[in-house]
This record gives sequence, structure tokens and C-alpha cells, in this order.
Amino acid sequence: MKRVLLRVAYDGTNYCGYQVQPNAATVEGALNRALSELLGEDIVVIGASRTDSGVHALGNVAVFDTEGRIPGEKVKYALNQRLPEDIRIQESLEVPPDFHPRRVESRKTYEYRILNRETELPTERLYACHTYRKLCLEDMKRAAAYFVGEHDFQSLCSAGSQVKDTVRTIMSLEVERVGELITIRVCGNGFLYNMVRILAGTLLEVGYGQRLAESMPEILAKRDRRAAGATAPAKGLRLVKIEYPKTDFRISNEGLSSK
Amino acid sequence: MKRVLLRVAYDGTNYCGYQVQPNAATVEGALNRALSELLGEDIVVIGASRTDSGVHALGNVAVFDTEGRIPGEKVKYALNQRLPEDIRIQESLEVPPDFHPRRVESRKTYEYRILNRETELPTERLYACHTYRKLCLEDMKRAAAYFVGEHDFQSLCSAGSQVKDTVRTIMSLEVERVGELITIRVCGNGFLYNMVRILAGTLLEVGYGQRLAESMPEILAKRDRRAAGATAPAKGLRLVKIEYPKTDFRISNEGLSSK
Repeated sequence: MKRVLLRVAYDGTNYCGYQVQPNAATVEGALNRALSELLGEDIVVIGASRTDSGVHALGNVAVFDTEGRIPGEKVKYALNQRLPEDIRIQESLEVPPDFHPRRVESRKTYEYRILNRETELPTERLYACHTYRKLCLEDMKRAAAYFVGEHDFQSLCSAGSQVKDTVRTIMSLEVERVGELITIRVCGNGFLYNMVRILAGTLLEVGYGQRLAESMPEILAKRDRRAAGATAPAKGLRLVKIEYPKTDFRISNEGLSSK
Repeated sequence: MKRVLLRVAYDGTNYCGYQVQPNAATVEGALNRALSELLGEDIVVIGASRTDSGVHALGNVAVFDTEGRIPGEKVKYALNQRLPEDIRIQESLEVPPDFHPRRVESRKTYEYRILNRETELPTERLYACHTYRKLCLEDMKRAAAYFVGEHDFQSLCSAGSQVKDTVRTIMSLEVERVGELITIRVCGNGFLYNMVRILAGTLLEVGYGQRLAESMPEILAKRDRRAAGATAPAKGLRLVKIEYPKTDFRISNEGLSSK
């Protein structure tokens, strides 16, 4: 038996999120079905990140166990033949049998994309949040800096979450504009439920001038979801990559750009 | 009565092209329906460019005549409320009643997008042509230079075209790489049927090393479609803008980038 890791990219538009659900199209469900058909075993993947409906991924991670003889690095090619075109395995490799993608220290990178122009562009409508309003990038950058480091992020966690420990570390949080596209790029050791979308929504409100950049520490201190901004739409969010710095194997994350 | 010009952006994925057809979803059909509902008149638009099924546009142009009193520049807002989300009017303005978008000298800019990485990215699958093969950008650039200027482009025109005069002028033709995305950007005074897609297909074959850059003049000299490369897939093509240098009015083409 061996454990195989998949780096999975998908367009989340047509899925009810990553995690398997009865009677709904999910990315995990599609992976389980394609793998079970391919290998002739009942395969149930273990995923790293349960992205929401409409959220995209360039490099989510899932692992599964198989008795099959197909080499780990070849699974990618066979599996892509059986997956719908909005899911594509970017890489597959054999990993130690005890590797669990949620129980090992990791670094996740997300991007939140904002299309800032007068009128929505149809070709970007599923991959960015559109706003015609003027955004002050300098204020957004100043606000972003307050979230870097170890903080209790309970104010940026949707109600309904079961998590007890809401302390997380953000290693970097950048806000960048290229033409009409503003990208918020955040790297951290873990994220609470809806945390990146609430962070994006809060930074948008700063950009509009509705909140002061200097009020961010106060939001964190309140430990109350109501202190932060609105949850930004799912379609603007993409999980770029997950790194496991303390493992022996390396995921290549080859050429991952936001393009 | 007045004539109103629309600058129209659309995602061509779900349309059988721009031009109206019975029993098929078309961009022109959607515009006619939304305008007729909005204005309470039977509106039939005159389009500038009949893009193929799957081809996208940031700035196609259409005009229509109306007896209505809604100011030209306001049509945009009212019309966007009634259009499906994959079509968005970027600008509307009143133009002289004799302005015809196909009978006036124009400059059209198209982009052909190639995603050059090992594995397809789901979020780009509808907006770029994917190839995992190595491409020599320098050869593609050298080949592109041969097409600039006034030439008989019959070799780059799909059979089935009715056009007699196949001489056109290409003002500029650039090949650029940003990360994994290669963009072919071409500006000309007119294009034959499938001309940009055949140009892209030919430049791809040069990039793969299947054709010499120096063989481009020979392709043109043959005046035979079979001399050129394959027609590249529709989804990689987008009509960026149409300019009318000899008219009094100006279309803003605000912020049009290829992102």
C-alpha cells in the first residue's frame, strides 16, 4: 500500500465547494469517483483545505491510499483523463504513509482578486470581485500590515465555526495593483472559516474610506465577528498553494502565478 | 431619431458567435432582445465584427437607431440591467446617423492568448489555448515581423469566405510572454475570416520548431490556405478594441488591458 499526494487545481464555479456532500457536485466527490474508477478500489481522499462554493484553487492538496501499482508520479496523467475539465491535477507524488495534509505544519497562500474599473468585464466575472468605486491602495496596504504576525483572529472568523483556538500567524499580506486588477496575497500557517474573505472585505472598506487603517488593531482586540467588514464574494478567492516546510518531500508548485 | 453606438464586452463561451442565427444563442440576438424590451421598439443592431463561437470581446462595436428619448450615454446603464451577465456594455454614445461600423475606416486590435505550462489551468481553460510544448519566443517574434505591412493575406483566410479582395494592412503584431502566458497582439485595418486564428496557429508551429520564421513570406506568396498553419482554437482569441480614426467622435476604450 502506498499514499499518493495530489496537487489539485480547479475552477470552483460549478461546485458546491471542495468537501463531499450528498446530492451535490463537489471537487472531493469528483476526485473520489475518478480515482475509484481508475484504480478499481474504493478511494476516499483526505483533503488539505475545504474551500467554499465558488472558490478556486491552483494548488489544493489531497492524499489517498492505494494498493495499485501505478507509480505515484504517473497518477496525474491517468487521472486527468477521467476528471472533468474544470479540475486538473498539477502534480502527483508518493509520500510517507503517515503523512496527513491537515495534521502537519503547513503554509497556505491565498489570493483575493478585485477588478477595479467602471464596468464589469464578462471574462473576469467568475474570477474576481468587481467594484467601480475608487480604492485607496495606500490605506489598504497600511491596514494590511496590522494583520501580519501572530494574532487572535476570532473577529475574522464566520460565526458557525466550531474552532476553539482562533490564534493564527500571518507571515505576509500584500496588496498590489496591476492595471485594473488589485490582488490581496496572504500567506499564513492556517486560516479560520471565511478568514481571507472577511480580511478582503475589511480591506475593501478601508480602501473605500469607510474605515481607518489604524482601526485594525481594535477589530482584532474585540474578538467579535461584527467588528470586522463584510465577507467578500467567494469568486474572488483562490487557494494558490500549500507548502509543508517540515516534510522530506517537496511539492514543486511549479510556475504558480495568479495570471 | 438618433443612432447610438455600443462598446460591447462579452464572454463568448456560451454563444454561437456574435451574429444572429435562428434557434441559437448569439450576442447580437441578446442585444436585440434587451434593447427592444428596454426601448419598446423593434431594434436590430448593426455590428462591427462577427466574432466566432467561443471568441471573446472586450470592445466589439454595434450601433442601433431609436426614437426613444433616453440619452445615448445612459443606454449603457439601463441595458446592462437587462443583459445576461456574460455580456456587458462598456460605453454608449450618440453618433452621427450615417455612421456605419463596417463601412468606415477602422483599426481593430485582437489578442490571442496561449497558456504555456505543463498542465492546463482550469481557471484559464476558456480564455487561452493551452500547450505544454516548449515554444521559442524569439522565432515567433521574427516570424511575426514578416506579416506587418500591406500584404495579400489569402493564405490566412479560411476557405468558405466570400471575400474577393484579400489585401489587408497589419499595423503591428507583437508576441510577448508574461510568466506562463504568451500573448499575440495584432492591430490591423481589417481581418479576413479566421485570419487571426490562422496567424496564431502558424506562429505556434514556428514556436515549436516545425516551420522556419523565414518561411513566412513564402506562405503569403502562395495565396493558398493550405500553405499556412492550423487554425488555433477560438477560446484563445479576444477582440480588444475597434477604433475609428476618421470620425469626429471618440470611443474611450478606457483601461483595456489583456490581464
